[in-house]
Amino acid sequence: MGTEMKVTVGGLRGKMQLTGKGHTGHEVQIDYIPPLGEDNGLMSLELLMVSLASCSAHTVLSILRKMGKTVEDVTVNAAGDRQMDAHPTVITAIELQFELKGNGLDAPSVERAIMLSEETYCPVWAMLKNSVAVSWNYSIG
Amino acid sequence: MGTEMKVTVGGLRGKMQLTGKGHTGHEVQIDYIPPLGEDNGLMSLELLMVSLASCSAHTVLSILRKMGKTVEDVTVNAAGDRQMDAHPTVITAIELQFELKGNGLDAPSVERAIMLSEETYCPVWAMLKNSVAVSWNYSIG
Repeated sequence: MGTEMKVTVGGLRGKMQLTGKGHTGHEVQIDYIPPLGEDNGLMSLELLMVSLASCSAHTVLSILRKMGKTVEDVTVNAAGDRQMDAHPTVITAIELQFELKGNGLDAPSVERAIMLSEETYCPVWAMLKNSVAVSWNYSIG
Repeated sequence: MGTEMKVTVGGLRGKMQLTGKGHTGHEVQIDYIPPLGEDNGLMSLELLMVSLASCSAHTVLSILRKMGKTVEDVTVNAAGDRQMDAHPTVITAIELQFELKGNGLDAPSVERAIMLSEETYCPVWAMLKNSVAVSWNYSIG
């Protein structure tokens, strides 16, 4: 059993600015660094990192809520190493830094939520981990 | 030789709405389908597909321009099959449909540009092809 997902990218402006859309009315502006692009949006590789950071944030949030925890805010900072000396210029490693705020959040629960996201619940993490070395750390406060 | 890329996701609102940012001031709103989320943004898996669609669009555009072609517009529609019967609910297959408009665009050039993107130039495609079966087709008009 599966479900179909559809997105569209188009509306070329400037050198290579594009607009991306999913199933809602929300849009994302996409561009590339100069001189090929004009920096009028997120780069495709940044979107890939935002996808991983938000997917892991969502799954950690859901797992902590199922544990009965209250999460007031979650930030995920992602830092990636992009290989530039040969094509394709892939990201070879990503570090995810989780910053969690909430009442009663403790280290064992947060660690367990991140490990469950990595191993079982975050589909983007599962799709990338064969290609990218993903490491993580966290802070509670 | 490499370069570091940084993105951030945070600013939790509603059930799980988040804001994503790259190195420019541009933002993307991220959410999830109800009942877990409230559909106030793109889903993480949609962002992954937008990343692949825009990366392939950018590389096809650059290659066609290097061939001396003028591209007036490019649209990439991406359709993904998401596995829903077990975690992680990954996308197992993506079909990319390229729609190109421009003067003097011909089938051999467009096919060669897409094949070079797939095999050599699109980093997102390279990072996903071990996990996802990616197929493509195109139209010129």
